[in-house]
Amino acid sequence: MTTTPLDPQNWSCPVPLRDHPTIVMGHGGGGRLGAELIEHLFLPAFGGTGSILAQLGDAAVVQAGAARLAFSTDSFVVRPRFFPGGNLGDLAINGTVNDVAMTGAVPLFLSAGFVLEEGLALDELGILAQTMGAAARRAGVEVVTGDTKVVDAGHGDGAYITTAGVGLIAPGVDLGPHRVQPGDVVLVSGPIGLHGIAVLSVRDGFEFGSEILSDTAPLNGLVAALLAAGVDVHMMRDPTRGGVAAILNEIAASSDTGVEIVERSVPVPEPVSAACSLLGLDPLEVANEGRLVAFVGRDDADHALEVLRSDPLGVGATAIGQVVAEHAGVVVARTGIGGTRVVDLPLSEQLPRIC
Amino acid sequence: MTTTPLDPQNWSCPVPLRDHPTIVMGHGGGGRLGAELIEHLFLPAFGGTGSILAQLGDAAVVQAGAARLAFSTDSFVVRPRFFPGGNLGDLAINGTVNDVAMTGAVPLFLSAGFVLEEGLALDELGILAQTMGAAARRAGVEVVTGDTKVVDAGHGDGAYITTAGVGLIAPGVDLGPHRVQPGDVVLVSGPIGLHGIAVLSVRDGFEFGSEILSDTAPLNGLVAALLAAGVDVHMMRDPTRGGVAAILNEIAASSDTGVEIVERSVPVPEPVSAACSLLGLDPLEVANEGRLVAFVGRDDADHALEVLRSDPLGVGATAIGQVVAEHAGVVVARTGIGGTRVVDLPLSEQLPRIC
Repeated sequence: MTTTPLDPQNWSCPVPLRDHPTIVMGHGGGGRLGAELIEHLFLPAFGGTGSILAQLGDAAVVQAGAARLAFSTDSFVVRPRFFPGGNLGDLAINGTVNDVAMTGAVPLFLSAGFVLEEGLALDELGILAQTMGAAARRAGVEVVTGDTKVVDAGHGDGAYITTAGVGLIAPGVDLGPHRVQPGDVVLVSGPIGLHGIAVLSVRDGFEFGSEILSDTAPLNGLVAALLAAGVDVHMMRDPTRGGVAAILNEIAASSDTGVEIVERSVPVPEPVSAACSLLGLDPLEVANEGRLVAFVGRDDADHALEVLRSDPLGVGATAIGQVVAEHAGVVVARTGIGGTRVVDLPLSEQLPRIC
Repeated sequence: MTTTPLDPQNWSCPVPLRDHPTIVMGHGGGGRLGAELIEHLFLPAFGGTGSILAQLGDAAVVQAGAARLAFSTDSFVVRPRFFPGGNLGDLAINGTVNDVAMTGAVPLFLSAGFVLEEGLALDELGILAQTMGAAARRAGVEVVTGDTKVVDAGHGDGAYITTAGVGLIAPGVDLGPHRVQPGDVVLVSGPIGLHGIAVLSVRDGFEFGSEILSDTAPLNGLVAALLAAGVDVHMMRDPTRGGVAAILNEIAASSDTGVEIVERSVPVPEPVSAACSLLGLDPLEVANEGRLVAFVGRDDADHALEVLRSDPLGVGATAIGQVVAEHAGVVVARTGIGGTRVVDLPLSEQLPRIC
């Protein structure tokens, strides 16, 4: 008979987590609290620093027989489930497609696990599933396996969807923090902050004058175009929870370089800027669901921008900064008035349940 | 800007689902309600009858470059999270390992998506993660990627875990309903009903005299042993939600054969039998989390039993019936008093949130 080989009496939570003896909303954000949970709780449990999990990329890169695969998962708990520009369904597809694509892989297959709350209207579930199917077809992937569980009313919030995705990495494709080096140019594929503000705009109590649509979209087409054009991409990430600020900090830390961005080069749409001013948010920390941040060699930057801009999803692509040898692990922004400020890793997502 | 290509106005729920205009607990069971949801809602949304999803196995079998993979997902919402013999953590690992293994694959990599409720004790999350790590090591797989989301108190139940798994299928391995044929012997790897009754035994209001432990365990070792021994396995399934009854019905339907089992050959432990009598449950419909049902050619049955019994997890393996050409799609049981009864597909799981 199976017994658990762990003695709960011997488990003790590492010190850094003790500031919060219970889970708080911030643990689900893309910031420092979430990172502590990974570093001190999940990583030791799942194999430690030598494990594949310790890659801590958007997706794991693994070898299965003769195939090099990217494998990723994301749980989606966005509230409300329908927001301007998208819903929980396309978010669940695009989010995992994008995580897989950021390794340079071609996303192929997705799984979908549904945790449904008793009382959810079947019509709504139908719409979510149809939206997922349409998003999968748009991205050129197939949902091949799934599971459905139902929880009692009062123990869910309509629907939570966890997708996982498998993609194939072509021989020779090698992206990651080890490739990032001083001189690399930091590109973003379009305007930032749209997803977070779009979701926030339909939360109770907030109303903005102009409708802001989520940018949720599959990025695998952009990635494939960059690689097909021979652009030597060193690393890519999609700046979801924690926004561009979290991604840049993560890359600076993992590649042991500094990152310097120029604030006025960062494409922040006027309505996002206005909403952020009103709410005291930093657009750099707001979630995106259809943007990528790419690090490319200086000589390849113009070519990369050209390739990105030739795709409707990358039409607003622009360079926002560069990698420097100084201040390793730290991200700084040149401000509009000539100074610089440190762009820190957010403590947690400013807006919970954004994806 | 992305817009959803689906017009919600045009979505109409197919007729068979209209009996339940909202999600009910039974939709999460392994029975008829869940099957209707898949057939009429998910399958049309995700590609229809020609799609890979339409394989409807425990895992999808897909080709990624040169590798033939098994890919599966399961969401785990068991309540309570700790039960005799296991907890949510090892259940989440073993459940997906087993689904992948049932295709004949060697499970390699898992993902884990956590939906945590605000207020969950970090100590408990630590124990769950440590248990998952230990279960993964026992099964010889690695959790390589994950995600954590936090939902507000009152919108979850501590922790829901969705795992997905990828396994590699060796050349020549070909299992599935197309291989099942009259004359095949139906084997079960050990006593049934333990998991469902173990969970039920710690639910409020139930108490049984003897402690029944869940059978949660990884089955990939048994599968590998069968294949390594050259047993020509035609098909395998692990009888989780809906129990052995659901699995046999599914196989009978998908292979267009009949299945005949002998009731007195079905290994039902006495405490399970007693609990089922007390509660009016059919042991054939109770969930297992560490058993497999295998269909093998008649000439291979004894060899298969020998291989299974030489592993501690298969020591109680036994033959419970056979595949017949008559009554295609229907499962019948020979009863103790000489008659026969139809073993129907359960309407839904008798015990909600069992896994």
